[in-house]
Amino acid sequence: MDHVPDQTINRLPIYLRCLNQARTVGIAVVNSLQLAQMAGTNAAQVRKDLSYLGELGTRGIGYDVEALIHHIADVLGLTEKRRVAIVGYGRLGGALHGYRGLADRGFDIVAVFDDDPAKIGTKAGELTVASMDTLERDLRDLDVEIVILTTPTYVAQEVAERIAAAGVRAIMNFTYALLDLPEGVKVRPVDLSVELQVLSFYLARSS
Amino acid sequence: MDHVPDQTINRLPIYLRCLNQARTVGIAVVNSLQLAQMAGTNAAQVRKDLSYLGELGTRGIGYDVEALIHHIADVLGLTEKRRVAIVGYGRLGGALHGYRGLADRGFDIVAVFDDDPAKIGTKAGELTVASMDTLERDLRDLDVEIVILTTPTYVAQEVAERIAAAGVRAIMNFTYALLDLPEGVKVRPVDLSVELQVLSFYLARSS
Repeated sequence: MDHVPDQTINRLPIYLRCLNQARTVGIAVVNSLQLAQMAGTNAAQVRKDLSYLGELGTRGIGYDVEALIHHIADVLGLTEKRRVAIVGYGRLGGALHGYRGLADRGFDIVAVFDDDPAKIGTKAGELTVASMDTLERDLRDLDVEIVILTTPTYVAQEVAERIAAAGVRAIMNFTYALLDLPEGVKVRPVDLSVELQVLSFYLARSS
Repeated sequence: MDHVPDQTINRLPIYLRCLNQARTVGIAVVNSLQLAQMAGTNAAQVRKDLSYLGELGTRGIGYDVEALIHHIADVLGLTEKRRVAIVGYGRLGGALHGYRGLADRGFDIVAVFDDDPAKIGTKAGELTVASMDTLERDLRDLDVEIVILTTPTYVAQEVAERIAAAGVRAIMNFTYALLDLPEGVKVRPVDLSVELQVLSFYLARSS
């Protein structure tokens, strides 16, 4: 799998979402054009991306939806549960905690952290908001693999360094900080305005 | 601009974010390789994408950061403010309302809607939560161009139809519904778990 391009990896979750939707509406087989249309790409791209996973489709027929879902989930490491912590439990952290899509896809939120004394110790769903004072120890004790970082931007670098020092190798960064972390820690920046900007283009073009 | 491929449009906001970050740290000129590394793509892709916008870079030197920011913002229609409403004012809706990145990029939240009588009429920042009963009228009166849809999935199709009927042509869909809307209404599905799935791949590969 080491040879799969990053851009293909970035598209696999999108194919997976489309395939799950197809399954929901009762479609058992899709061809590359259909999958491309659902995913907002083109058929050649779909075929190329999926070719990295091995020979999966049947020429002239298409891909078995169920089989492809399992195969992509396997490649993405989604067949095992991932232990996730939310660091910074404000509105966005709370919303992500309640976001059904995470648990549904095997991401277990096992801890939430904040530095606000008024929040620490209070209930957060089935969890209790933990203090930032014990961040490193808790992340290790709970075997957290992925951190969702939703602190204010000005503390993000410092907090991310502590997270990395605790052995976490994957951070989903909702802050505006450009995180500078040791090799081996994968950071994915998330900017919720990107999709709005794409919509803005279509509005600008059509008006 | 009609000939710019969708995939290029999807990458422009990402380049814009990278360029803004470069500007923040004092970089005035970037070459295509640098921009590609920041954006997680390759230099040829950057050059090809930016070529659709016209001749912008200087061979052997690179792109002027400030000029390219303005040019991309212009293409994306970000130089004018966009009027946005949030429909479904739960935790995610509230978090998006408070998300600094939207206002910073010219997206003005001008209304928020919910159908919960306990919420309707209460304060939401500087706004008041409006009733779904007056959705169509309010969307028209306020000249809303983009709706952020954060209702429960099971009502999403019905609500989206009302939004489209009110003349809104762009919907950012945070629900799991596959929206079926009239031609001319652009829908962007958002799945917050996609980035986690990409991180999961890197964890699976490296362990």
